[in-house]
Amino acid sequence: MKLPASVHIKEVGPRDGLQNETRIVETADKIQWLNLLSSTGLSYIEVSSFVHPKWIPALADASNVFAGIERKEGVTYAALVPNMNGLERALAVNADEINIFLSASETHNQKNINKSISQALEAVKEVTQQSLFAGKKVRGYVSTVFGCPYEGNVKTSAVEHLCEELFSYGIYEVSLGDTIGVANPLQVEQVLERLLKKFDSSLFAMHFHNTYGMALANVLKSLEAGITTFDSACGGLGGCPYAPGASGNVATNDLVHMLHQMGVQTNTNEEKLMQASRFIQDKLEIQLSSHVYRAEQHKTMSR
Amino acid sequence: MKLPASVHIKEVGPRDGLQNETRIVETADKIQWLNLLSSTGLSYIEVSSFVHPKWIPALADASNVFAGIERKEGVTYAALVPNMNGLERALAVNADEINIFLSASETHNQKNINKSISQALEAVKEVTQQSLFAGKKVRGYVSTVFGCPYEGNVKTSAVEHLCEELFSYGIYEVSLGDTIGVANPLQVEQVLERLLKKFDSSLFAMHFHNTYGMALANVLKSLEAGITTFDSACGGLGGCPYAPGASGNVATNDLVHMLHQMGVQTNTNEEKLMQASRFIQDKLEIQLSSHVYRAEQHKTMSR
Repeated sequence: MKLPASVHIKEVGPRDGLQNETRIVETADKIQWLNLLSSTGLSYIEVSSFVHPKWIPALADASNVFAGIERKEGVTYAALVPNMNGLERALAVNADEINIFLSASETHNQKNINKSISQALEAVKEVTQQSLFAGKKVRGYVSTVFGCPYEGNVKTSAVEHLCEELFSYGIYEVSLGDTIGVANPLQVEQVLERLLKKFDSSLFAMHFHNTYGMALANVLKSLEAGITTFDSACGGLGGCPYAPGASGNVATNDLVHMLHQMGVQTNTNEEKLMQASRFIQDKLEIQLSSHVYRAEQHKTMSR
Repeated sequence: MKLPASVHIKEVGPRDGLQNETRIVETADKIQWLNLLSSTGLSYIEVSSFVHPKWIPALADASNVFAGIERKEGVTYAALVPNMNGLERALAVNADEINIFLSASETHNQKNINKSISQALEAVKEVTQQSLFAGKKVRGYVSTVFGCPYEGNVKTSAVEHLCEELFSYGIYEVSLGDTIGVANPLQVEQVLERLLKKFDSSLFAMHFHNTYGMALANVLKSLEAGITTFDSACGGLGGCPYAPGASGNVATNDLVHMLHQMGVQTNTNEEKLMQASRFIQDKLEIQLSSHVYRAEQHKTMSR
């Protein structure tokens, strides 16, 4: 098996995790948690989203969170931004990097942001141009790459077309999202085989959810295809609100543990990740879905 | 990716699952559950263990369970057997097949069955001879293949030696056990690479626990190495009693789902597996760890 020497982890728990949890975490607790996450060695954290608070009340305090955290050197603190209004707010708090998003499926895009894909691309283009103008790098999420809750199958040709557009705007990386956690390893291999014929593997991150338990197997296939950047959420936050108990984003804990066990470096301290996980579990009053967290929590609690 | 057209699933939930759960299931409920499992299409079920009830009280009713179940045609109903006493009891209820076990680690073997490996081999040899004499096929579990809770690393040369012995006794298949769920995909590839130089892949089953979330990734690597038989437990039963909330055996639900999604046949009905899972969840009063079960339970409950 050909494995890279090291992998970049992009922590999305504070955004993709918290936006899907039922309970809203207080601003001061978010800030404390983000500082704990910074202390793990993670070099990239998506702090919050500047989507209108009407749509995601759990992240309405994005500006205060940004203002409150300690900015550790070497860590990129990114903000999700849907439009020019959001960008203005993100720039006002000096987010290090801007993340934009749209869906590879027309119906999902329409239901999620009330725009067609071509309308979404226009908005993304403007946000990207203005971000670059302000000196901020821009990363793009393409969601429902491996399946759509409304349309089912999603054509890889549509994903390819979107990537082409996004890269042409100056976006430096596209995160390929398995939004509903339906990707399987064979499919991951096939989709990447196609995309990597056209684009360099360094242009992609993979964003897996563990809904059906296949996230780490999908990571493995991505690694073998040459991908070295992965999104994940501390503790596995972000379970679907419509299926209580269902798994969320692939857990940073589980991802980092598997990589370390295989000798792949991530520059992330597993012990400190446990501490950050325990902190947010207490605030959310849930049982985290991370396997490593569940297996290890009793050991660390008795220390 | 080279995948087989079909895979054999060996359901170990009624034995390896229940023996690690805190609550003891009533005999009549076990029987009803086993009949539900038979109806899923699974062709191999390890029904119980004839270990002395003093050691595993949860399975003390093995004889009554065997006597009570409906034997569906085409299904192999196997029994775990530690010694000649156990074999006598298993033969008395006409178990279809005998499963023996020992550990690749000296300390684990000692702590688990109070015998050295060479003493264990003697006992296994006798049980195997008598089983074959009685017309029963014998399958062997080698546990702690990928790591031991006492010794840490386990040498693959020790595993290789044990396999040689077991095959020489007439055992038709060795199930390579990741007893504590620590195997990682790179290790699985390396261990199988070594063993398959000497033995045919059809002689092995893989037995993964999902303690650290890597089970399906390990299954994937095993499939790619040529393995086509896997042990799993309905719902992911068998979490460690010392780490409440920790994952158990790889869930039959999750395994079958991943295989089906990749076009690999298992002859198992996922809907019926959901029913069998819900049944045992209610009896054990736990939340099953299977990802597929958690994601799908609300859909099936509202039907």
